[in-house]
Amino acid sequence: MTGQVRLAIADSVAQVTLSHPGKLNAMSRGMWQELRAVFATIQQDAALRCVVLAGEGGNFCAGGDISEYAAFRFEEASLRHFHDELVWGGLQAMLDCDVPVIAQIEGACMGAGLEIASCCDLRLASASAKFGAPIAKLGFPMAPRELALVMTAAGELSAREMLLAAAVLDAPTLVQRGFLNRVVPEAQVGEEVSASAVRVARLAPQAARLNKQSFRALAQVQRALAATDLVANAYAYAASAEHREGVTAFVDKRAPQF
Amino acid sequence: MTGQVRLAIADSVAQVTLSHPGKLNAMSRGMWQELRAVFATIQQDAALRCVVLAGEGGNFCAGGDISEYAAFRFEEASLRHFHDELVWGGLQAMLDCDVPVIAQIEGACMGAGLEIASCCDLRLASASAKFGAPIAKLGFPMAPRELALVMTAAGELSAREMLLAAAVLDAPTLVQRGFLNRVVPEAQVGEEVSASAVRVARLAPQAARLNKQSFRALAQVQRALAATDLVANAYAYAASAEHREGVTAFVDKRAPQF
Amino acid sequence: MTGQVRLAIADSVAQVTLSHPGKLNAMSRGMWQELRAVFATIQQDAALRCVVLAGEGGNFCAGGDISEYAAFRFEEASLRHFHDELVWGGLQAMLDCDVPVIAQIEGACMGAGLEIASCCDLRLASASAKFGAPIAKLGFPMAPRELALVMTAAGELSAREMLLAAAVLDAPTLVQRGFLNRVVPEAQVGEEVSASAVRVARLAPQAARLNKQSFRALAQVQRALAATDLVANAYAYAASAEHREGVTAFVDKRAPQF
Repeated sequence: MTGQVRLAIADSVAQVTLSHPGKLNAMSRGMWQELRAVFATIQQDAALRCVVLAGEGGNFCAGGDISEYAAFRFEEASLRHFHDELVWGGLQAMLDCDVPVIAQIEGACMGAGLEIASCCDLRLASASAKFGAPIAKLGFPMAPRELALVMTAAGELSAREMLLAAAVLDAPTLVQRGFLNRVVPEAQVGEEVSASAVRVARLAPQAARLNKQSFRALAQVQRALAATDLVANAYAYAASAEHREGVTAFVDKRAPQF
Repeated sequence: MTGQVRLAIADSVAQVTLSHPGKLNAMSRGMWQELRAVFATIQQDAALRCVVLAGEGGNFCAGGDISEYAAFRFEEASLRHFHDELVWGGLQAMLDCDVPVIAQIEGACMGAGLEIASCCDLRLASASAKFGAPIAKLGFPMAPRELALVMTAAGELSAREMLLAAAVLDAPTLVQRGFLNRVVPEAQVGEEVSASAVRVARLAPQAARLNKQSFRALAQVQRALAATDLVANAYAYAASAEHREGVTAFVDKRAPQF
Repeated sequence: MTGQVRLAIADSVAQVTLSHPGKLNAMSRGMWQELRAVFATIQQDAALRCVVLAGEGGNFCAGGDISEYAAFRFEEASLRHFHDELVWGGLQAMLDCDVPVIAQIEGACMGAGLEIASCCDLRLASASAKFGAPIAKLGFPMAPRELALVMTAAGELSAREMLLAAAVLDAPTLVQRGFLNRVVPEAQVGEEVSASAVRVARLAPQAARLNKQSFRALAQVQRALAATDLVANAYAYAASAEHREGVTAFVDKRAPQF
């Protein structure tokens, strides 16, 4: 069992659930492929008017599934395949979605979770949610295209703080910095998100799709500039000692020596 | 009588007033043409040092004049002419203005009002001002170039929230999100804006014009990317049932059925 | 004695100090050259993991050294050399730095100081710090490339307010607008910055360098668009009466007549 991305549809609203019990919904390679498939399905359903994306059991998504990393991260080709095909395949499917997507963010929203949240249109968070991408503790950088995505959505200040200082930021800070639309008490997140979804689903659906196409047309230009080819050898660090040490230390539950 | 855009000049400060009594200064087609003419006049007056733009009677601008919409919105060519010639003609004249422009925002600042405010350099608002672009209730999207303008000035988070969720945001929220420089008590807005205009008008006028040219040079590149040609068939929705239903329902004072 | 930029290295952290006693660390031409040399040295030191940049004696940097201006500002070629070679040489060396840079901002952070702070990755400020670029009082605009830098880091709203209205903004406002990561009581700034530097220096150093390269790759595209050639004759104002009057009045300690 390596986690699932589930899809349920009711009353023109799609509910997407990240589920990886015991791992705070950390994204496995299989989940990235499911995320892509789920959003491809959503994109083909002309009757849909809103998508809600949430994590199961009180957390959004804690990042990638680190237990899988030793199997593919230390070789450049497989690392590139992971980022450019699996991860970006899922994120691109979200960005390609013409229906408004609301992120319901509770608990951990880290690394991959932050990237997934960055692909949503509206972001509501529980007051206790936490945000970050402390992969500098794991010995590796964010892939350039993913960094461009987070930088655009969260702002350059927060992106640099999360990546270069491994900062973990709370929900009020990210409301203040313009990443979150609203922070609500923990017990009311689900209810508030559902009410928002109902309101969005009542609005003119073709207008929403056209607006999303415009947002995407504008953003795509920026993201094209941000493509990995701007950064030569983005995955050449795969076999480096630092990368191995960070990932291995995490799995071994010890502090890394950089 | 379909509204006016008035210009008055005193002491090197131009006062531009949006006036459409009984319609919260909603922009008619005639007003868009007057807005363009007024800013062309301002641009040719080398003695001007500051422009103040306000709405008459306690509101900035409630949007477009919907009573005119049935006459031109449901045919692609006339809809394109409206957005690309009339609306963008007015907004482009504002963006081309070399003199600092201060928006004095009271009451409703919706749709067209939000776009006009997005072309200003400084934005002061009354504590009770309201901001949004709830055109998804009228069954149509924002024109791509106008969306690019609002997205740049108000930020992507607020632009998506206003367009995809038809959110109406208050002044403190838009100070917090970096769209407004300052929010002041309702009774003091005029006085505060006048004081700001006097301060701006005392500064070096050539320096202001050169700074505005630099801001424009940088922004034009982004807006060029945002031109309508990026979005194929941006106005093909003109004759759609959804568009007709939204506009017609509004005029008929009933809820639209999307 | 026209000021210094000092470099001290200890425990993989570089401490850069702007020092111009009696002038609130205003940047002289010599200091711009030293800033460039210091960051070139830092960039070649593979053992470094963090840079802290601060001003001496309770101020960050009050701007340029205006006492030098009459010697070179009023002739187009020497003005262009100053901005494109001396100033941009220093700023570019900072932007080219692969090691995370933390700005420790106390007191005045104006003009050149604001530009230098804009090149840092993390910005911590004392509660009493003040920010601005009131050069419209000196009769000249910000050079286009420097304006692009400030606009990107501080946001368009603040950049326009500082340049077009000569606004001086306080630290809480610039936390709220996303330019500063954090504001701390005056007595604790040094301590907080040191603690941040230690934390950054413990993280994976190659990951930090790769992340900074990605941020730079993305930002360079934007800055390329922002190059001075977009603005024709950016320095043609050199010999203008307004420019002379502004600079001369400041040196003469009288109000300029624009």
